Amino acid sequence: MRNLRVNADRIAADLDAMSKITDPGRPWTRRAFSPRFDEGREWLARQFTEAGLIVSNDAGGNLLGRRPGGDPKRGTIMLGSHSDTVPDGGRFDGVAGVIVALEVARMLDERGIRLRHHLDVVDFLAEEVSVFGVSCIGSRGMAGVLPQDWLALTHEGRSLDQAIRDCGGVPEWQIPATNIRAFLELHIEQGRVLEAHGTDLGIVTAIAGITRIEIVLTGQPDHAGTTPMGTRADALVAAAALVTDIDAEAVRRAHGPDHFTATVGEFSIEPGAANVVPGRVRMLIDARSDNRDQMREFLGWSRQRLTKLPTKISADMRVLSDNRPTPMHADIINALEAASGKVGATHRRMVSGAGHDAAFMARLAPTAMLFVPSKDGRSHCPEEFSEIADIALGAEVMAEAVIAIDQEGD
Amino acid sequence: MRNLRVNADRIAADLDAMSKITDPGRPWTRRAFSPRFDEGREWLARQFTEAGLIVSNDAGGNLLGRRPGGDPKRGTIMLGSHSDTVPDGGRFDGVAGVIVALEVARMLDERGIRLRHHLDVVDFLAEEVSVFGVSCIGSRGMAGVLPQDWLALTHEGRSLDQAIRDCGGVPEWQIPATNIRAFLELHIEQGRVLEAHGTDLGIVTAIAGITRIEIVLTGQPDHAGTTPMGTRADALVAAAALVTDIDAEAVRRAHGPDHFTATVGEFSIEPGAANVVPGRVRMLIDARSDNRDQMREFLGWSRQRLTKLPTKISADMRVLSDNRPTPMHADIINALEAASGKVGATHRRMVSGAGHDAAFMARLAPTAMLFVPSKDGRSHCPEEFSEIADIALGAEVMAEAVIAIDQEGD
Repeated sequence: MRNLRVNADRIAADLDAMSKITDPGRPWTRRAFSPRFDEGREWLARQFTEAGLIVSNDAGGNLLGRRPGGDPKRGTIMLGSHSDTVPDGGRFDGVAGVIVALEVARMLDERGIRLRHHLDVVDFLAEEVSVFGVSCIGSRGMAGVLPQDWLALTHEGRSLDQAIRDCGGVPEWQIPATNIRAFLELHIEQGRVLEAHGTDLGIVTAIAGITRIEIVLTGQPDHAGTTPMGTRADALVAAAALVTDIDAEAVRRAHGPDHFTATVGEFSIEPGAANVVPGRVRMLIDARSDNRDQMREFLGWSRQRLTKLPTKISADMRVLSDNRPTPMHADIINALEAASGKVGATHRRMVSGAGHDAAFMARLAPTAMLFVPSKDGRSHCPEEFSEIADIALGAEVMAEAVIAIDQEGD
Repeated sequence: MRNLRVNADRIAADLDAMSKITDPGRPWTRRAFSPRFDEGREWLARQFTEAGLIVSNDAGGNLLGRRPGGDPKRGTIMLGSHSDTVPDGGRFDGVAGVIVALEVARMLDERGIRLRHHLDVVDFLAEEVSVFGVSCIGSRGMAGVLPQDWLALTHEGRSLDQAIRDCGGVPEWQIPATNIRAFLELHIEQGRVLEAHGTDLGIVTAIAGITRIEIVLTGQPDHAGTTPMGTRADALVAAAALVTDIDAEAVRRAHGPDHFTATVGEFSIEPGAANVVPGRVRMLIDARSDNRDQMREFLGWSRQRLTKLPTKISADMRVLSDNRPTPMHADIINALEAASGKVGATHRRMVSGAGHDAAFMARLAPTAMLFVPSKDGRSHCPEEFSEIADIALGAEVMAEAVIAIDQEGD
């Protein structure tokens, strides 16, 4: 292992301690708003305190640990991610970025490195899709863009409004945070790109926009035995050709320099009986790109493709959501690249296909992300794994970048 | 309307009376083993009695009405179908054949036509898939081929054994019926072939064999945003290409003289989440043909096709059931054709893609079926409809055929 200033053993011990705070009998389950999540946060808050950080909650229900700076007017450099998980997955997803942020603060203290900026370690509330069906609650709150109608969502009798209060937040006080000099988030890649290329770290240039398109094809549910092949209006056969074409179109768009994926992840047929020709298919396309033009073209292609269905098949297409890509800030990208070079970590620029709290923080402050490799690209499952050595190397790069950003303008 | 000896108004009145015996608030629902089914049978038994038939139940739980013949050693000519329905569909499916059989008996009496054979009108028990999950219970029983382990099936605390007894059957006495000279069943087509050709009647040459093939494709459930297009093992994309090929193969086989259909009627994906590449697809193929060679070849083609999947996709194929086609008897086909000619009904030979009680009766006796057109080919739904004129024409042809068969050997 390289000679690092951050302490890999301490990172490993912290991740191990957090991994043990999991729902009984389930691996790595610490869902937001659950007792286990509260337990994790109590443990985190103790570590923040032991590291000399000033612990607080903001109006968004986020947990903050501040290392005060020498010249606070310069603002705050914020590092962090989220400690909540999906069910049965999340040994590293999120929590690695919180622990790394904490380790950076500890290392700076140990090495006697004073910063001019405040350094805030943040654990965002409920980044994953929560029991309320929505995600990135804390980072939306910090950015002042949490949809107010979400507060009325309820789960088992508790409103999201109350749930945020139970995490220390005050929904009516959520306004965009100010004077954040930079936000940096370390996260696991959740893909196989770094592993496949044998690269230490990924520097994220953009978080892909996500567009969700629902398509319903309607044919006719006929008797499977008595309806001759040539006379059918089989919605599944039409949908199968459509899935093939969507995949080919996505492969074509991914060949260029842009990030592009399109996935039919939901697909159901009706009536779904062995002896009935399928009369109806519903599918949901999840399309992602860092290039808005690619997405506009894909939407146009989709509409055009639906005009070429068999004559007896009708189509209904609805764009359920259409979120633009979020470019990361060139200054922070450059700072992470310079820091990687200084530390001696191999690195590549890449697009994040997954959404992150950083997408909301980018509205407030110059923002970028650092990815560490995921074993076999797995995430959101018990097999999710990243090497401590990679995470520690990422922590070292984060620390170098923080120091560089703090010193800018000298 | 043609000048017929059968009484179309009486057929219409009977079908209307039976259509009113339906579960409250639901159209045409008289499922086997329900109180409504019993009510329908009581009504039928009264009509049988009023028509001078001797009413009985056999060991299979079938309702029989016998018009004794002058020379009973010659055996029994049996006509009939079933009075049970699927939920919300069955205004004509089955019951038309029972009422037509009754009308033939009534007409013969009215016209003073004596037969040498007994004429039995039969209402088979539970032709449709029943609450016990199995079908053709009565005709299997009459043929002595009801699987004995089915008797232990239960629904709401009642065994099938008890349910058959409650319909007058005695499961342990079920042995193959003997001395049946011929069995003829009139049924609605449940397809659009007769309607499309403007043909009055269909004469069934075979009941297609049905083969059910389950295919499970396994890929890898990856993150939809972070897994580049070229690196995926998307089970849905592989399955879509397979569905396209299955359809094309079926269309190709249907171009020849044989009946051939293949339908993917069940199709489900896992995990079925918007942001996850599908890792698993299960599909069920329903393939039907009157030509056993076609089915053998299709099974071979299916196995071969599964060797050509993308390298990261694995397949598991299981033949869940594989029933041979049942040819109808040339003598009865010819009798129906001659009768159609005599009555002046246009007719065409065709294969039944749907299963029927006649498939089991064909084990016991020379058997054939007569189809009447279905409006828009619809069946098993509230819209199922056949014209009384067509049904009456079919009844006339059935009567002519019965008389001809009775007179054979003179």
